[in-house]
Amino acid sequence: MSIEVTAFKGSEKNGIVESKTQREGPTGNEVLIKVTHSGICGTDEHYKHADMVLGHEGVGVIEQIGDKVTQLKVGDVVGWGYVQKTCGECEQCLLGQDQYCEKVEIYGFHSLHQGSFGSHAIWDASFVFKIPEGLAPEDAAPLMCGGATVFEVIEAYNIRPTQRVGVIGVGGLGHLAIQFLSKMGASVVVFSSTDSKREEALRLGASEFCATRDKKSFDVAKLDHLLVTTSFMPNWVPYLDVMKPKSTIYPLTVDFNDLVVPVMRLVAAGIDIQGSTVSSRSVMKRMLDFAARNHIKPMIETFPLTKAGVEEGMTRLREGKMRYRGVLVAGAA
Amino acid sequence: MSIEVTAFKGSEKNGIVESKTQREGPTGNEVLIKVTHSGICGTDEHYKHADMVLGHEGVGVIEQIGDKVTQLKVGDVVGWGYVQKTCGECEQCLLGQDQYCEKVEIYGFHSLHQGSFGSHAIWDASFVFKIPEGLAPEDAAPLMCGGATVFEVIEAYNIRPTQRVGVIGVGGLGHLAIQFLSKMGASVVVFSSTDSKREEALRLGASEFCATRDKKSFDVAKLDHLLVTTSFMPNWVPYLDVMKPKSTIYPLTVDFNDLVVPVMRLVAAGIDIQGSTVSSRSVMKRMLDFAARNHIKPMIETFPLTKAGVEEGMTRLREGKMRYRGVLVAGAA
Repeated sequence: MSIEVTAFKGSEKNGIVESKTQREGPTGNEVLIKVTHSGICGTDEHYKHADMVLGHEGVGVIEQIGDKVTQLKVGDVVGWGYVQKTCGECEQCLLGQDQYCEKVEIYGFHSLHQGSFGSHAIWDASFVFKIPEGLAPEDAAPLMCGGATVFEVIEAYNIRPTQRVGVIGVGGLGHLAIQFLSKMGASVVVFSSTDSKREEALRLGASEFCATRDKKSFDVAKLDHLLVTTSFMPNWVPYLDVMKPKSTIYPLTVDFNDLVVPVMRLVAAGIDIQGSTVSSRSVMKRMLDFAARNHIKPMIETFPLTKAGVEEGMTRLREGKMRYRGVLVAGAA
Repeated sequence: MSIEVTAFKGSEKNGIVESKTQREGPTGNEVLIKVTHSGICGTDEHYKHADMVLGHEGVGVIEQIGDKVTQLKVGDVVGWGYVQKTCGECEQCLLGQDQYCEKVEIYGFHSLHQGSFGSHAIWDASFVFKIPEGLAPEDAAPLMCGGATVFEVIEAYNIRPTQRVGVIGVGGLGHLAIQFLSKMGASVVVFSSTDSKREEALRLGASEFCATRDKKSFDVAKLDHLLVTTSFMPNWVPYLDVMKPKSTIYPLTVDFNDLVVPVMRLVAAGIDIQGSTVSSRSVMKRMLDFAARNHIKPMIETFPLTKAGVEEGMTRLREGKMRYRGVLVAGAA
């Protein structure tokens, strides 16, 4: 059954473009999702000049399913984003260590027709996740990339409730990292350029807050982990001084520049700089359950899911004004 | 400097015996602690016929220190209990994996003069732990054995905030396990013989409660871990049916009987029965910090730290009436 799909795409010159196409319905293991909400992520900004449908923090309702779909049904509220697609066949996958899959891909990345800035998406049911009860769809949307990205680090690199974890930046990712970590009982030390977000960070669950601007050293006890959630890399020197021996730093955001770190400070203390990709399917499920059970609530600003709404939301994010995640809402124009 | 020490000991025939002795003060790395509080643990019951000072959940104030002590000072509020003493020299210790020390001992176990049922204890400063701010001494006492025993499992066997953890028994250990696990955001499923403790378990943070008496199967989703905190082993069959493949069961209490488990159910599902000993020093410190940061609060009944108080508290525990941990308080007679 053919359906009309509206989508908001990037373009080389003309900003956000609204396109309408006819598409065939889902087949096999695919599902057709009517988009109700979509988060706006900094990564969308990087692709606004590409001819692809933007958006990868989708939440919606399943409208049609292919004939092979067994786990989901019409009417289910689901979310989707970029997740790891493992091969299931390499040595690591067969060992059950699919977090080390030798052929891992990012499912959904560079999708030409499937972004969540639009009316519908057709997606492989294996990469679509039921939103648990107790999690509102507008709150679930920012979790599908922002939440999953920080939770992947917490789970895949085994951050413990007894550890001291630094978070640089109180924004889309940072404000979720603070909540996740504090709700698991960890000691959370937040770094932000000025004191303007101090109260909010503490309210979100931070144990300590450190304003960093113009400081050559930080007066905090040493950390086991450090999550860098800002869109630019920090001046590393004062951070390296507050890392425990053999601790780990995770740069988390899309940044096409070089990582520049003083070698000796890393070497002498055995500090690890650990890249982390989008979440695995397993982490996505665990993250959603954890969020529902522990009342994780993104702070959001909503915009209509229209060309004007996409433009307004992306502009606000680009200007650094978003507190802290924009969510496009269908039918809210 | 000689001091008069009062202690309450077990005895072969005459129940609790009060003894007074003169002892020399601390030397070297020892500290003299004036006992202010002591928890009453089920393990004390097992030694009530032995000629030893009972009590191993001590909290008090340091009165004197030996000439080698550097980490503690007179006036510090500290706790002590049984903890692992690793050799520091075996291959595992040198690998930094001292949780697998080949010569591990239980420090303080079978101490003839050092139990916390008394006026004073002299203890190696390396096995004495500062009570963090925010943790009242009467609340810290039950953590020194009951809390540490369950926290050792959580930390040493890496229970994650995203997992489903069963706890059998709502008592001295169980009511602390529920709090620790729920404060780290895990899904906690409590098993108790009847519904009488249902409300309390849920209030302590349980996600689900299951009354087990006369049930041949339990209607709960499968578990990653199961902590057995009762003083007797359960009928394993219905529990094995709710364990995930490759999940782990931890018997935690002192029981001198045999463990009797149907082999095939273990084998087919790859289930692990994992013994766990008293906590390491590292876990003890992390547990106290976690408890203070996350407002863990034992439910206690207090008794005077006198011969009569010891007898009354131990009787109440033996009769199964304690809700949930008895604490002896010095000077409360």
